[in-house]
Formats: sequence, structure tokens, C-alpha cells
Amino acid sequence: MAEEGTGGKSDETNPSESQTEQKNEENQTTAPKDMKAVVLTGFGGLKSVKIVKKPQPSVGEGEVLIRVKACGLNFLDVMVRQGVIDSPPKTPFILGFECAGEVEGVGEGVSDFKVGDRVAALTEYKAWAELTSVPAKYVYPLPPGMEFQDAAAMLMNYVVAYIILFDVGNLRSGQSVLVHSAGGGVGHAVSQLCKTVPEVTLIGTASKHKHDSIKESFTHLLDHSVDYVHEIKKISSEGVDIVLDCLYGDDANKGYSLIKPLGHYILYGSANIVTGETKSFFSVAKSWWQVDKVNPMKLFDENRSMSGFQLRHLLYQQGAHEYVRGVVNKVFKMWEDGQIKPVVDSTWAFEDVPEAMQKLHDRKNVGKITLDPSKEPKPKPKLQTKGSKEKDKEKEKDGKAAGETSVGENTNAEKENKQGDSSAPASAE
Amino acid sequence: MAEEGTGGKSDETNPSESQTEQKNEENQTTAPKDMKAVVLTGFGGLKSVKIVKKPQPSVGEGEVLIRVKACGLNFLDVMVRQGVIDSPPKTPFILGFECAGEVEGVGEGVSDFKVGDRVAALTEYKAWAELTSVPAKYVYPLPPGMEFQDAAAMLMNYVVAYIILFDVGNLRSGQSVLVHSAGGGVGHAVSQLCKTVPEVTLIGTASKHKHDSIKESFTHLLDHSVDYVHEIKKISSEGVDIVLDCLYGDDANKGYSLIKPLGHYILYGSANIVTGETKSFFSVAKSWWQVDKVNPMKLFDENRSMSGFQLRHLLYQQGAHEYVRGVVNKVFKMWEDGQIKPVVDSTWAFEDVPEAMQKLHDRKNVGKITLDPSKEPKPKPKLQTKGSKEKDKEKEKDGKAAGETSVGENTNAEKENKQGDSSAPASAE
Repeated sequence: MAEEGTGGKSDETNPSESQTEQKNEENQTTAPKDMKAVVLTGFGGLKSVKIVKKPQPSVGEGEVLIRVKACGLNFLDVMVRQGVIDSPPKTPFILGFECAGEVEGVGEGVSDFKVGDRVAALTEYKAWAELTSVPAKYVYPLPPGMEFQDAAAMLMNYVVAYIILFDVGNLRSGQSVLVHSAGGGVGHAVSQLCKTVPEVTLIGTASKHKHDSIKESFTHLLDHSVDYVHEIKKISSEGVDIVLDCLYGDDANKGYSLIKPLGHYILYGSANIVTGETKSFFSVAKSWWQVDKVNPMKLFDENRSMSGFQLRHLLYQQGAHEYVRGVVNKVFKMWEDGQIKPVVDSTWAFEDVPEAMQKLHDRKNVGKITLDPSKEPKPKPKLQTKGSKEKDKEKEKDGKAAGETSVGENTNAEKENKQGDSSAPASAE
Repeated sequence: MAEEGTGGKSDETNPSESQTEQKNEENQTTAPKDMKAVVLTGFGGLKSVKIVKKPQPSVGEGEVLIRVKACGLNFLDVMVRQGVIDSPPKTPFILGFECAGEVEGVGEGVSDFKVGDRVAALTEYKAWAELTSVPAKYVYPLPPGMEFQDAAAMLMNYVVAYIILFDVGNLRSGQSVLVHSAGGGVGHAVSQLCKTVPEVTLIGTASKHKHDSIKESFTHLLDHSVDYVHEIKKISSEGVDIVLDCLYGDDANKGYSLIKPLGHYILYGSANIVTGETKSFFSVAKSWWQVDKVNPMKLFDENRSMSGFQLRHLLYQQGAHEYVRGVVNKVFKMWEDGQIKPVVDSTWAFEDVPEAMQKLHDRKNVGKITLDPSKEPKPKPKLQTKGSKEKDKEKEKDGKAAGETSVGENTNAEKENKQGDSSAPASAE
């Protein structure tokens, strides 16, 4: 309850929702119950991610109150944590863009949902909590038999993959596609959706250590750290039809250079601007100036297409919720028909979100990382002895385990939460 | 025959064809017969377009010799005449990019065509002649019952319209399209192809005087010279899904500004760089610097696509002839199914090409302008008296009739041809 005063209003980004909650608080004579939520206390590193007790949200007009059973973790959440997205909300706020669960209440004017319905939602933040109140336009009924974890694993990744491949990319029989981060959530979605079109050649790039796990799903699998442009030119001298780029920066120019006549370069993310644990102004600036601007006349001369796709802007700024609903319906139908099946890398407790985020940051996941609010957190290591620290140093040689260790020290959230917002964010900002 | 020595080689742009012809000339003991062709003697104005007697072409390996019955005139031909395209061939050369006719000979290695076949072709120049020898990869069999004039009217315009609407633009049910030059050949093709997709809203811009002729084919018809961006925003505040831009320059920025989220700006021409009768360096430069260059991150932020399409590069530089053949087949199938039907504005004799070109330049055509090699030229006006000149001045007030008058003075080609290449081109170059 200590959190109520500090977090009650400032974690709301939608003014109307904020007002609703305020009104609700005034009207209620008994204090609202608490719930557990994953809150970003300030932009920056893993320490800024806290488990916080928050008052349960009320359900406003046009909203659906969801008892959250599963959430999806996306690279976007890492970028939000670092503050490297446009117009981020003010901290503190509840993180998370997608969840699945059961309807626990419906607001005035909502006729499509009733209490007990099994649903998934694409929320504008606030998904990572035991309860979340979401405008009904962002809520989708689950097909019979779809597990909550599967819904949370599919929703954003498959919607993005569907749109960039089919609606933006216009993928047709016999074409070739390049996708980066082939082992990630979108990578898996792309590989399964490509299989629904005859004779598609799918080239993926991924860290070498993932190749064994995913090689069956790709025609060609390349190590992103080698000269993949050269490798692809060896496979097809004239390049590929569609490049799906979630990296930006230097990979944007490479991707553009790889499309054949009538080919299509599609930017749907900018993961390259994330380098260390916190925001790097240098990485952001470098990514920007590395990328060539294009005059339409160049596209005319070269017979090429260039697109950008960003679900967050489309849904919450551009109001295309009816269009997205149509895509969700198609994706769920494909799942019902057995054409697609989400691959879950691992499922985590809210308390272990920092560790899960670091795993995603280090590209160690194969498939989607999901959260389960009911899951018990991992047992935390005791205070480190000198011996265990030496062990960690050995791990570091093997890769980026250092981040995971610091997470271990940081996720004993229940205790730390008592400090509330006073814990300083590790952000560079 | 006077032309043979001067024109025999220099009007050939393909070295291998040139060699073939040379060899042919050496081997033949009797001189080859003559044919009539529309030749560009130098880049510039209408006076550079001449009817010239040329030796009949031989048919090389992999080629098809076509007895031309009909040709298409495109805005591209006006741009070629002015020299405002990249890598133009050396003058003099035979103009024209499309024709239809009967196969009169097939070269070694050609198995898909035989003498007597009715065909159409997308040629790299050289279409406007009584005979033309074309690589078989650019030749397409006509469906039974298709008139040569209809084939020439359809081929390039419908192939371009099909590709930009469906393959590049991915037009889907319920979407909206903006097309400029709505009364031209591509405009008609676009309007008919849009009708094959349910519930498409089609907005066209055209000169006011054409509106009555074409209004049935468009949902909304606007005058290009008014503030069409404002008018379209009144029709749909968020803009349109697909902008088909054949103009470039200022219209490129306007077009981009008009596309809604997930919308697509497609550049397929740059008619705005043509202003007067001859090339204007100012117009070319202005068109270029008027247009904003785009960073893919902007497309990402705005959820937009930008494409360029140029059939000439695709076919002759990028080798996509198999792809184009597939599109021709689909277009011809749609014609057989009665879904599309070319609209011919007017058909002209070779001798009257300058006048036809000027009509196109002045946007006075409604539908396609075609040529017929067997057609008698229009009777030419006698030497103008003072009275008739005054009449012309009156005409000028009404529009751009001046060009047509100079054409009248210039197309008595048979006589002028005796001067051969010595007639100075009116070009600014």
C-alpha cells in the first residue's frame, strides 16, 4: 500500500484512464486491493525494473479488465527500459505490451466481451501486472484450446511477421526472404508463415550457437557476425526479394543492397541502437548517420521498394486497431488450422524479468520469452563469496554472463520494493 | 537507299545486333529492300522526328522479325525525343518501345514462334518501323481475336498498371488509389484493373476538359491544377492507401504526404521534367531538388512504403523478361475474360508522329495513342498565308496549338527525308 500514493497516477499514460482511476479512488470507501506489477522506475539498466505492489486497476468505459495469466517479452521492452524509443511515458510505469488472461470485468459500452472470456491483448504498456485494464479495441478473444502462454508467445510476433511478410512485403510463391535474429520470436513466426507460401527460399542470420536448434526452419542459415552480404551473394548473385530488417544502422544499407529488382527492403526494428545495458547516445547517433537517405528517383531507377513498419505507432498513434484485429483473426485462424505453432524459449516469474530481459538482450533465447505472474521466482543465490566471483569471471570469458549475475543480485524484488521509487535508476540519462 | 550508309550502323544500340546486320550486308549480293521507319535524328523538338527509308532488318539468332501492324506511343517516347532519359542511344535511331504485328521470320534458336504468328513486342527502341527484329524474349503471342491496334494500345500501359497496382502496390479490397493523368493510357488501365478488386476507391487527377469523358471510371475526379491535396483530404482526411505518381517533382512530396498509415507511394514516371518542346535543364534540376530524400527510419516511424518502378530498366537492364512475360500473360487473360478493354484515343500514320507526340505532350488524348504503318498521312496544309497565321494565333490563345502547327509544317516526311541526317535537330543539346 505504500506504493499507492507515489505510483497511483504517474504510471498512467492515458489521461482519460488516469482520471477514471482517480475518480474511482475517490468514490471507494474501502481501499482497493493490491496487485503485483513489473514497474520501470527510471530509464536505464536492469536495476530500474522492480516488482511493485500497486492498487488493482478499475475498469473504465470501453475497457476490459483482464486477470493476466501470461505475458510476452519483446525486444521493444528492452528499448523502452533504456529509454531509446520516441515519446516514452514518464517513469514510474508498468511495463509490457502484450498479455493473455481471463476477463474479470467489462466497462460501460463493452459488448464484445464478458466476464470469464479467455482473451489476449496488445496493451499500450501495463501488460506485466496481475491485472490490467485495456481498451476493448486492443483485446482479442482466444480461439478454443489456445493456451494463455501460447497466445502471449504468438500475439505481437506473429502479427508483426504477418503484416511485414504479406501486407507490406506482398510475399508470393517462388520468392526469397532474408530475416535477421532468425532464432527470436519474430524469426520463428517468419519461418512458419513463409512455409504457407509455395517455394519460398528463406535465409536467416543468427548467432552460430543457435544454428542447430533452428536450421530445419530455414533454407540457409548464416552467422550474422560473418560477411553475410557476401554469403548471400554467393547463394543468389542478384540478391533476395524481401529483406526484413529489425536491426537498422549498418544492416539497413546492407539490406537495401541485397534486394533484387522489384525487391523490397522492410525496416521493422532498430535493435542495433541497443549496445550495452543502458542507452548509448553514440549508438543511437551512429545508427542514424550510417543509414543512407533515398530519393524516390533512386528507387525508380533501381526498381526497388522501401518500407517501415512499427506496430506500436500503428495501433496507439495511428488508430489502425480494426486493421490489426483483422490480422489477429487471420493469425489465430492459421493457428487453428495447424499452420503455425509458437515456440516458447522459456517462461519466467515477474521477479525474474531482469534476468529474462538480459537473456533477450544477449540473444540467448531460441523462440519467445514469456512471463507467468503465478510462477514462483527462481531461488536467489546467497551473498557471493570470493570463490563464486571467480567462477563468474570464468563465465565472462565464455560470453556475456556478467549481466545475468548482476540480475541475480537485483531481482529479489519483494525486499527491494520497500524502497519504492527511491532506488536510483542506473540509466545514463 | 541514300540512308543506308549513314544510318545502317549508327542507329543500332545493341553491338551484337549491329554486327549481325553488318555481316548480313556483307554477305548479301543483292541490296536489302527498304522499309519506312520513324527515326530520331537528334535529341530535341518535333523537327528531330523524321520518316526515313532504312534497309529492312535481318533476323539474328534468338530474334523474331515482325511485320509491324500497330505501335503504341508513350510519354516515354516524348522524353526520349528530348533526351531526358538516362543512357539514351546515339542518334539517329528508330524510335518506339512497343508494337504488334505478324511474324515474318524467326532466327536460329527460336522455337516459340513461327512465321505467320500474331504477336506483340516490347522492344528496346526500333518498334516504329514497317519491320522490326526483336529478341524472342520480348515477344508475346496474341490471344485469338485480339486486334493489333488493341494489342499495341494495351501492352505497355496495362503491364505497367498491373505491376504497380498488384505486385508493387499489393492493392486489396476496400483500399483507395490516387492516379494522375487519369485520362491517359495508364490512367485507363489503372481504372479498369482497379475494378477487378472489390470496393476500391479510385481518385484521378486530369485536366478539367477530360472529366466528362472519363468520369464514369473514377470514384472522384479532380483537376490537377487545383490544390488536389486539399481536395483529397476533404474526401478522406487520413489520405489514400496507394499513390501512383508518374509526375515526380513537387507531386512526389504531395503524393507522399497523401498516403495513410501502411500506405504506399509509388513513382513510375517523371513527366514533370518535360515542360517545353525541348529539354529544359532547369526543369530537370528543379524536379530533382524539389523531392525530399527519405531515411528508412522515417518510413518506420510513419508506417509507410515508397517504391519506384521503371519497366525499361526492368526489361533491358535487369533482365526480368520472364517475370514480365508472366504479367503479359495475366493481362491478356484478363482481356480474354472481358475484364479489361483498351481505350484508343486515336491512330496515326508514321508521318504524323510529331503531331501525335504533341497531342500527348499537351495531354489532349483520352486513352492511348497508337500508330499504324499502313495509314495514309493526313493531308498537309498548304504554305501558310498571312490569314492562316492569324488564325493560328487565335488558336494559341486557346491552348498549345502552336506545336501542332509547326508539326504540320514538318511532317511532310517523304520529301524532307531526301536531306537525310543533314537536317539540323532542333534540340537544345
